[in-house]
Amino acid sequence: MQNTNMQTLAVDLGDRSYPIYIGSDLLSNPDVYAPHIHGKQVMIVTNDVVAPIYLEDIKKALKGYRVDTVILPDGESHKDLTTLNKIFDALLEHRHNRTTTLIALGGGVVGDMTGFAAASYQRGVNFIQVPTTLLSQVDSSVGGKTGVNHPLGKNMIGAFHQPQAVIADTDTLETLPLAEMAAGMAEVIKYGLICDSDFYDWLQESVASLISGDAELLAEAIYRSCENKAKVVSQDEREGGIRAILNLGHTFGHAIEAHQGYGSWLHGEAVGAGMMMAADLSARLGVLSDGQVLKLRRLLQAAHLPVEGPKDMSCDDYISRMAVDKKVLDGTLRLVLLKQIGEAYVTSDVPSTLLLETLMACGAKAS
Amino acid sequence: MQNTNMQTLAVDLGDRSYPIYIGSDLLSNPDVYAPHIHGKQVMIVTNDVVAPIYLEDIKKALKGYRVDTVILPDGESHKDLTTLNKIFDALLEHRHNRTTTLIALGGGVVGDMTGFAAASYQRGVNFIQVPTTLLSQVDSSVGGKTGVNHPLGKNMIGAFHQPQAVIADTDTLETLPLAEMAAGMAEVIKYGLICDSDFYDWLQESVASLISGDAELLAEAIYRSCENKAKVVSQDEREGGIRAILNLGHTFGHAIEAHQGYGSWLHGEAVGAGMMMAADLSARLGVLSDGQVLKLRRLLQAAHLPVEGPKDMSCDDYISRMAVDKKVLDGTLRLVLLKQIGEAYVTSDVPSTLLLETLMACGAKAS
Repeated sequence: MQNTNMQTLAVDLGDRSYPIYIGSDLLSNPDVYAPHIHGKQVMIVTNDVVAPIYLEDIKKALKGYRVDTVILPDGESHKDLTTLNKIFDALLEHRHNRTTTLIALGGGVVGDMTGFAAASYQRGVNFIQVPTTLLSQVDSSVGGKTGVNHPLGKNMIGAFHQPQAVIADTDTLETLPLAEMAAGMAEVIKYGLICDSDFYDWLQESVASLISGDAELLAEAIYRSCENKAKVVSQDEREGGIRAILNLGHTFGHAIEAHQGYGSWLHGEAVGAGMMMAADLSARLGVLSDGQVLKLRRLLQAAHLPVEGPKDMSCDDYISRMAVDKKVLDGTLRLVLLKQIGEAYVTSDVPSTLLLETLMACGAKAS
Repeated sequence: MQNTNMQTLAVDLGDRSYPIYIGSDLLSNPDVYAPHIHGKQVMIVTNDVVAPIYLEDIKKALKGYRVDTVILPDGESHKDLTTLNKIFDALLEHRHNRTTTLIALGGGVVGDMTGFAAASYQRGVNFIQVPTTLLSQVDSSVGGKTGVNHPLGKNMIGAFHQPQAVIADTDTLETLPLAEMAAGMAEVIKYGLICDSDFYDWLQESVASLISGDAELLAEAIYRSCENKAKVVSQDEREGGIRAILNLGHTFGHAIEAHQGYGSWLHGEAVGAGMMMAADLSARLGVLSDGQVLKLRRLLQAAHLPVEGPKDMSCDDYISRMAVDKKVLDGTLRLVLLKQIGEAYVTSDVPSTLLLETLMACGAKAS
């Protein structure tokens, strides 16, 4: 395909390898889809916010196929088994068979649910990710994690299922609200923090331009983020070890999201506050310097991200929610912390007094 | 473990290999479980018919673990996402983590749902099958197919997920109603039909003793069935090709089950009638001899299985249900038929006139 504005990143996972296309003018280009659709049937899964903006464009690009559509309600609060079943309803009503291809058009919620539907429909069909938010372009595009929430825990029901391709069209970021741009930046910053200090330095310089929507810089940030994530994931596809570092800030963040009710804090906002907590705790353990904690605080603020948790959460609210997090093995709380900017580590050796100090320093009530 | 009444069959699937233990006195023996439980948490999933009979026995065998239980309503009509969610509820309420082991205690419905819950909970945890019906001992124990039904199609939502071990205790068959014993025999007969004519001959001789519950002969029938299925599955774990022959009678059978409402015909009964239809059609195509069709009819009857479909189904009822079956690729109906006793083949080359003749010969109304 001819597109000078496009970069391609290969995610290397053996026979489950796939490309990520990053650039402008991709969503409506038939040539980016064609090599990755192997049957005649296509089911576009999207939501009621994204559909009015992009559905017609993508349908034009898929003219050669039998295309059906299912439009889900928007938002994390609908990321559940009931909404998932609407995808199965649509697939069966329109008699899609095992050769069908699902296309996830939207943010992370649409991507996670479409991926899980693809993993489970007739025990596994193909799907393509077309992420339309910064968060989903840098985060959900790599890793194969799919799933839905349960009232008692986020992403508790799901599967590992790799897409055939990811199409990250940077033009879609033009319509993204600032809060969602900031939420995406939380994950971008995370990749710098856990494994790429050069990228972190570049982000400190570029944060204002990125937040204001500079397409060229955004494409670079997406590429570097996906590249870093792909490196980690290809070492540990099913999260037995090293992959856990991708959860920096997430154990705290999931506690915030679960307590507030999914959707009231954006995932990226909760991760932003969570990374601040991880950095604060790393400093209290004497591992990270106070200067680096302060730099992170400034970067998060420049990215319009929260550096504290919600005011109505107590330490107990955090602890009880963190205990059910998937990173907890046999009752032992394991946390991802920072040795330095650009290097994360996993530890279960965290004195609870220090954890409580961190939570209170980051806005939690004592009880 | 010391148990002279036990045979072990190894299912060879590379790093997903596992043993099937077949014999008496197994369900309450701690030694058969211990090598296959890697954490401290165990969740027994069973139903309200099986629980009163076996739950206490199995709990005694699991004394060393933190055991929780979830009891589902019995029957195929409850094999759906709503009932599946009860398993997730229990796992999260009792804070089971990724190291938990699910134990499926019951028939095929419990096994399929527990397996899918294990495949999906936190994107995959371990499980052990303890099948308590003949059907589930010979069928669900091998193959890794898990899932639930959708109102528009059977087993439409699921995953491939292999157990850590299968514990087939033949003592559990003593409490099995005759209709369920017969339903299990349908799958046993299937293995003879598709790939083992010696076994088929042995079944013709042994059918009366098997149906009346001869424990030694049943253990042999279970072993040979699982062995044949394992041979096919190990060649084609995810059903890309040869594995399709395991569906002999199932495309017809699924149409019967879907039309009648899941649970009103037992799965094995529907498969029995479906195998008769497959044989009849094979004869009409000039492949199978009329003598062999007649022999199959007698064997099914001796096993107390139906040789015709339900009286209230029309040819159209079959055709429309068969078209949505998973074996249909791109709108082409593919059927598993018989070259001879002991050899199945897959074809999409079936004149619809012959198909209609078969349906009517096997009890379907013309319209």
